[in-house]
Amino acid sequence: MKKALFIKLMLIISIAFTSIASADGNKKIRWRLAETWGPNFPIFGDATKNMAKMVKEMSNGRFIIKIDSANKHKSALGIFDFVKTGRYQMGHSASYYWKGKNFNTQFFTTLPFGMTAPEQYAWFYYGGGMELMKKVYDQYGILSFPGGNTGNQMGGWFKKEINTIEDLKGLKMRIPGFAGEVLARLGAKPTNIPSGELYTALERNTIDALEWVGPSLDLRMGFHKIAPYYYTGWHEPATELQFMVNEKAYNKLPKDLQKILTVAMKAAAYDMYAQSMHESGKNLAQIQKEYPNVKIRSFPRKLMSKIQMANTEILNEFAEKDPLTKEILDSLYQYERQIRAWTNFSDRAYLDNFDPIEE
Amino acid sequence: MKKALFIKLMLIISIAFTSIASADGNKKIRWRLAETWGPNFPIFGDATKNMAKMVKEMSNGRFIIKIDSANKHKSALGIFDFVKTGRYQMGHSASYYWKGKNFNTQFFTTLPFGMTAPEQYAWFYYGGGMELMKKVYDQYGILSFPGGNTGNQMGGWFKKEINTIEDLKGLKMRIPGFAGEVLARLGAKPTNIPSGELYTALERNTIDALEWVGPSLDLRMGFHKIAPYYYTGWHEPATELQFMVNEKAYNKLPKDLQKILTVAMKAAAYDMYAQSMHESGKNLAQIQKEYPNVKIRSFPRKLMSKIQMANTEILNEFAEKDPLTKEILDSLYQYERQIRAWTNFSDRAYLDNFDPIEE
Repeated sequence: MKKALFIKLMLIISIAFTSIASADGNKKIRWRLAETWGPNFPIFGDATKNMAKMVKEMSNGRFIIKIDSANKHKSALGIFDFVKTGRYQMGHSASYYWKGKNFNTQFFTTLPFGMTAPEQYAWFYYGGGMELMKKVYDQYGILSFPGGNTGNQMGGWFKKEINTIEDLKGLKMRIPGFAGEVLARLGAKPTNIPSGELYTALERNTIDALEWVGPSLDLRMGFHKIAPYYYTGWHEPATELQFMVNEKAYNKLPKDLQKILTVAMKAAAYDMYAQSMHESGKNLAQIQKEYPNVKIRSFPRKLMSKIQMANTEILNEFAEKDPLTKEILDSLYQYERQIRAWTNFSDRAYLDNFDPIEE
Repeated sequence: MKKALFIKLMLIISIAFTSIASADGNKKIRWRLAETWGPNFPIFGDATKNMAKMVKEMSNGRFIIKIDSANKHKSALGIFDFVKTGRYQMGHSASYYWKGKNFNTQFFTTLPFGMTAPEQYAWFYYGGGMELMKKVYDQYGILSFPGGNTGNQMGGWFKKEINTIEDLKGLKMRIPGFAGEVLARLGAKPTNIPSGELYTALERNTIDALEWVGPSLDLRMGFHKIAPYYYTGWHEPATELQFMVNEKAYNKLPKDLQKILTVAMKAAAYDMYAQSMHESGKNLAQIQKEYPNVKIRSFPRKLMSKIQMANTEILNEFAEKDPLTKEILDSLYQYERQIRAWTNFSDRAYLDNFDPIEE
């Protein structure tokens, strides 16, 4: 009797501990992430690796995220569907790639003449941006999060100087997406060419100009060797990449792992912005040192205002298509106007008034 | 025999699970954090609360950090000692408050004419800043981390316009620390006054001017009601607050909680920068709407270059005092020069060339 009772007690205790142990998740959770980028792609690929490493370490190895690059899953632009269908629990890409799926996705990456990175992060996290992004992605069972900022992207590499609107007419330029539409309205011939063929296309004058990212990623492409003019940016002032999470998979996670995942994505995204700044500074110095003939120019203000007018025209057409588009664009416009007043009195006034400390 | 064996087995199993359960930390770890700020201090106080909330949720309640504000511990500037002695495991303050303890601590907050926030984050995390900070804090058994950025701070509220160096002579201004030293060299009379007495001091002309933070925190102080000139900044281009952790306490944490803590501090710091941007944009709009007579000015460039010369002079004197000071300043100078070239071609060119999108 006594022994039987003891056995029962031990059983109860051991069952109790078993359930605590598994509630605490000694069972490993394994997820897969598909990224748009190739293997070992700098900066963008570091963001996913950093995120997965933080998740693993913070969860004490209970939550493991395996990353498949484009060479593995063979579909750089299939990430949206991978995550929607649950074939992958997570993805890393950029929201503007999905405008064919849903027109409104494109506003959560960057906008020509839109906000800078610090302004846009304020909009995402404190100005209603996350809520609007949720409105767009909810119907797909996808949770979307900021995935790392490239910083202000350069206007591109040009073989000849651009001074007037005439110089844009007929200009063959690799500039995909919305920015290409804007330039097309002014007579340019925008085109898209796979990244592996860009250098040759520019070298052989198949195209007259191209935009890529900025010094952080342009240096390795070698464009500075064949195009002497490097123009400052207007079309992607703060390109934010994107983490996507399958909502059902997320909901099955224990609460602590949900939080670990969201904080890791957020920290990895912010870190990518700092890394992009760092690499751009370093690589710009290298380009200028090794290729002193590279000339950095801004488009003349008169030309820029024409580009800006075409841009506004297109955005206004967008806003008429769909009430949610209008809601998103209104939020972006209003927020930008308010926060730009502050940026102008703070960082811009500061940068305009002083030069860096000299030793 | 069989029963006895079974009992033994159950005992072994239950002990095994007990040890797994406690290794997994069902035992709660309770820490205390002392912050320089009063209770419910906006933005700065949100950073500590956000950090503690993330730690609690990511650790599934295993790691609880209780925050004591200055009303509780009664020593706003005692945080360094609290953390050093282990009376508190953590602190939240600003590194430049400790220059009396160690001269080199002051370079990890901001520097007059130094880097902007995105530049400085790149320096901390990718440009060697964290390593230099560790060199300074190691001897105290304190781990120091970025604790949230205020963004570019305004130059201050002035009762009269400042046009020439003569206008600075004898000017009584609340501007503590290193920036005060710089203005003193040009004939101003810098002073420090407790925050609770600032408004009255300015109203009764006990002082002619003061600097506080920027619209994010100035609005609630009401200075715009009594000083018509609001000058753009030069002396604190990117004030980074600080999390401090007692090294021994940190080393006793399980590895997963160490990582949870460091990632939570990092995310809370970055978030505070986004929140500061947001609040500054919002509050600047409110100041300009309610007090249209507030005039925002920049110091004339000629005057600013005199201030900058005095600043360089003092920094060079600093560098001669101690090889580590020189090492830190050289790192800051070199990094700033390199990354500023990029900022000038990216965000600055962008801000200078275009105005925000108009509807």
